[in-house]
Amino acid sequence: MNFRFITLSAVFMLLAMVLLSSCSTAVDPLPSWNEGASKTAIMEFVQSVTDSSSPDFVEPGDRIATFDNDGTLWAEQPAYFQLFFAMDRVKTMAADHPEWATQPPFQAVLEGDMEALAASGEEGLIELVMASHAGMTTDKFSDIVKSWIQTAQHPTLKKPYTELVYQPMLELLDYLRANGFTTFIVSGGGIEFMRPWTEEVYGIPPHQVVGSSIVTAFEMQNGKPVLMRQPKVHFVDDKAGKPVGINQHIGKRPIFAFGNSDGDLQMLQWSTLAGGGKRFAGIVHHTDAEREFAYDKDSHIGRLDKAQGEAEAHGWTVVDMKSEWNVIFP
Amino acid sequence: MNFRFITLSAVFMLLAMVLLSSCSTAVDPLPSWNEGASKTAIMEFVQSVTDSSSPDFVEPGDRIATFDNDGTLWAEQPAYFQLFFAMDRVKTMAADHPEWATQPPFQAVLEGDMEALAASGEEGLIELVMASHAGMTTDKFSDIVKSWIQTAQHPTLKKPYTELVYQPMLELLDYLRANGFTTFIVSGGGIEFMRPWTEEVYGIPPHQVVGSSIVTAFEMQNGKPVLMRQPKVHFVDDKAGKPVGINQHIGKRPIFAFGNSDGDLQMLQWSTLAGGGKRFAGIVHHTDAEREFAYDKDSHIGRLDKAQGEAEAHGWTVVDMKSEWNVIFP
Repeated sequence: MNFRFITLSAVFMLLAMVLLSSCSTAVDPLPSWNEGASKTAIMEFVQSVTDSSSPDFVEPGDRIATFDNDGTLWAEQPAYFQLFFAMDRVKTMAADHPEWATQPPFQAVLEGDMEALAASGEEGLIELVMASHAGMTTDKFSDIVKSWIQTAQHPTLKKPYTELVYQPMLELLDYLRANGFTTFIVSGGGIEFMRPWTEEVYGIPPHQVVGSSIVTAFEMQNGKPVLMRQPKVHFVDDKAGKPVGINQHIGKRPIFAFGNSDGDLQMLQWSTLAGGGKRFAGIVHHTDAEREFAYDKDSHIGRLDKAQGEAEAHGWTVVDMKSEWNVIFP
Repeated sequence: MNFRFITLSAVFMLLAMVLLSSCSTAVDPLPSWNEGASKTAIMEFVQSVTDSSSPDFVEPGDRIATFDNDGTLWAEQPAYFQLFFAMDRVKTMAADHPEWATQPPFQAVLEGDMEALAASGEEGLIELVMASHAGMTTDKFSDIVKSWIQTAQHPTLKKPYTELVYQPMLELLDYLRANGFTTFIVSGGGIEFMRPWTEEVYGIPPHQVVGSSIVTAFEMQNGKPVLMRQPKVHFVDDKAGKPVGINQHIGKRPIFAFGNSDGDLQMLQWSTLAGGGKRFAGIVHHTDAEREFAYDKDSHIGRLDKAQGEAEAHGWTVVDMKSEWNVIFP
């Protein structure tokens, strides 16, 4: 009887273990991704580089994953969110700058005339960014961004910008980290514009954020050290600048990279085409006009043209947002 | 009898546990540091910011520690080791550059004339660095550094450079990491000169190394992406550049910083004088002519003058190498 009891117990325990283990393997780490080519490619890649018996195994310290931000981790239409930040800043600062009322590009911003703003070109945009982003300490700028991101709303979607991040990409970041990857942002956006909120929103700490920057200068002000933000471009982390920024900040070549536009092409090339083991490149293709936006080769923001051709040539993964993501925003 | 046996066993076990626990608390995390002001200050600081019941508690994510390299983590006399690297490179490359035989500063290097080299000034040094550090891919440069560091020897101490690191500082790095700190190098030295070996020697991975850099440019060479090193300064991570580099790479203000010279002054100011909680600043004072080198305010390399005055004014910790370190090199 005793023996039978022990045997029965053992059988039940074994059964429970089998059930539990099959249960735990059944938990989907990417529930917002529909079964399909992209999800399969991602999961097969992660399995092959994390399985120590695989010829493609990569040591955890070398599992570097880089993500573009605008259009890859959060939305970027009808304009980069940082431009809305700059415009909101100009409106806030306008009281101290009566001359802006008749001075482009500020006049265009104050009158909400997006066409006139676009007509001011790159020069106008840089003027706008410098007026709104420079002339204060780094601490002050960080406070301004934090306060803006907590209160500002997207002009057409009427939601806080931090709710316009892509749920499938949040899951992907978590999934990679759970598999020993270190996740970095590599964005054309401002490094100091992103850092105040990327840790909370993406789980990516400031030292894992790479972006464009303006010059800062060290000063002692009344015995206190500060870094003053200067109206001068220091580094543009876009296109051919992305591999440069990756090298400068990370010092290792990513094995996994995700972008959405031609601005990410060189990052994807740098990550995957230099040889030395299995690599993954992914592109978010904005195909969902109903739930988000649909745009590619004809868009001024996030143009996807050359990179799509390269994706085809090299077998990179192109995510069809409409069919492959069952949820867009959290 | 049975009862007495159980009691005795329990007493022995209790005794063993007490002995083991007192044994484990007695393990000194900094054995190469003599008991004294510096060791006490370091350990008291770490205890106060890691004790969750302390008013000075700091979350692990904010436990940022930055270390200068030359003269702080490894030696820097009679000249920065990177200069010896540049000189060795010039000697290796000389066969392809017959014109260097009569061209300063190369002639000085090839003839081993340190006085003539010094006379060539900063301009000569930059020329030397550019000739030896630029004109190849980042991968190639990394390979060159790796191979040099494995074979080169210090000209007077006749040891590999990686054996001229300071054992007490290696222990300090380990101790901080064991207490949840993230350790960074912030050096005037070349970022790409350090990264190939800092992980192995200091346990500091490439993305936690901040340093000076030259411009790199992305290119596709026969379908392969490369970054070409250009003979142009990109960033000088020294003096007022150190807080700038820290902000650019780390994005948080350190709570613990260690240097050894006036080149570290602004890093120590930036780390400790901006308020917002308890901070630690340390300075390695080279006082041991017998076991290492003795130099401070009159030295051309690693001059320590103004920073020592500031240390006194702000109560920073100045390590007297001679009396406080019982071992210098591993």
